[in-house]
Amino acid sequence: ELRDIMVASFGEQPLRGRRVVVSAGPTYEDIDPVRFIGNRSSGRMGFAVAAAARDAGADVTLIAGPVSLPTPPGVNRVDVRSARQMHDAVLAATEGADIYIGAAAVGDYRPSETAGHKLKKAGGEPLRLELTENPDIIGALAALPRRPFLVGFAAETRDVAGYARDKLARKGLDMIAANEVGEGRGFEVADNALHLFWADGDVALPRVAKTELARQLLTHVAHRFLASQGLRS
Amino acid sequence: ELRDIMVASFGEQPLRGRRVVVSAGPTYEDIDPVRFIGNRSSGRMGFAVAAAARDAGADVTLIAGPVSLPTPPGVNRVDVRSARQMHDAVLAATEGADIYIGAAAVGDYRPSETAGHKLKKAGGEPLRLELTENPDIIGALAALPRRPFLVGFAAETRDVAGYARDKLARKGLDMIAANEVGEGRGFEVADNALHLFWADGDVALPRVAKTELARQLLTHVAHRFLASQGLRS
Repeated sequence: ELRDIMVASFGEQPLRGRRVVVSAGPTYEDIDPVRFIGNRSSGRMGFAVAAAARDAGADVTLIAGPVSLPTPPGVNRVDVRSARQMHDAVLAATEGADIYIGAAAVGDYRPSETAGHKLKKAGGEPLRLELTENPDIIGALAALPRRPFLVGFAAETRDVAGYARDKLARKGLDMIAANEVGEGRGFEVADNALHLFWADGDVALPRVAKTELARQLLTHVAHRFLASQGLRS
Repeated sequence: ELRDIMVASFGEQPLRGRRVVVSAGPTYEDIDPVRFIGNRSSGRMGFAVAAAARDAGADVTLIAGPVSLPTPPGVNRVDVRSARQMHDAVLAATEGADIYIGAAAVGDYRPSETAGHKLKKAGGEPLRLELTENPDIIGALAALPRRPFLVGFAAETRDVAGYARDKLARKGLDMIAANEVGEGRGFEVADNALHLFWADGDVALPRVAKTELARQLLTHVAHRFLASQGLRS
């Protein structure tokens, strides 16, 4: 059990004194004052990860998209709505941080223009909405000269391992947590499974409650992070 | 006070034995398995209207979009996600009903195609999303030979009275409840104001808690409905 080995080497709080930033939840991109493009993330996995990082001894900042979840006690929370707000909040919070865990389901696209007033029906004609790519948050962190240990998430509906390995390499991440989403899987449910990948290894974490899954994830993140610092368990 | 006059004429339960259908909440239109177009309705106004109709003695069916609200005790609830699902559920529930109150913020548009798998970034290029108009639920009810008493809502960001009067006439509604939405008004807040319009009158209901506002709305709906049946208070 990695957890037992970690506790033997580093005690119950392997991340004591470390600063961890976690992003969680969806982002909403406004089309007009009432309509938006959103995604199905409930934020539960990210909130559980923030609580697990706190339990591992870290000083935790949680950047949260629009969710209706209570803040885990002892965690600093920053609320945002759009992907660009999340980008700015994450970049500010990660200055000098040790670890960033990007569990938010950040919207890839936003409407190219946000209307100031509610759009009216066009009278039967199809409407074309032009969308612009949002900034790549973890990609921006990976490009920094002094970057934190970077853990990304990949929520995919197919070929999960393939996309995850590709994203790990392409974005230069330290670890990626991949899960399969879709009907009854990953989003909007209380339990989940993850497959963790890093440059020279991987481990599958079978389906359990998100709180327990977050604890297992944090054990692996702490292990890989400490190894990257030259500390071995 | 209209309420006192109504109680004197019809007692505490002016809608006893009547069937009332209320729609509430937003609709979500899926772009792919994780992304959707939504709107900011919390469902609170519609849920309060359903509870007020129950208190007025009616047999109430509540057609609810994706919200996280408890069902008012004694109310029959049907959950839907998309505008087309809401259309079908409302048309089924209103067969033989006396009153329909359309408090849902039904999405005007849906993506012309829903992708079966999560769409991937196009690599910097803008994306064009083609949107198709959703069916007009209250318009479909208005066109029925045996139609219920129809109460629509108009959530507007400007020229509220103008749009409301136009919608009342154009859709052939019996009453419309208009409110101004935007930052801190109407959506996602606990209180609200409404302006009710019908063919030959109107009344402004000043800003109060949504539960109280719903009671006042129901008093006016019951009054106009009973008048339309030849019953006078």
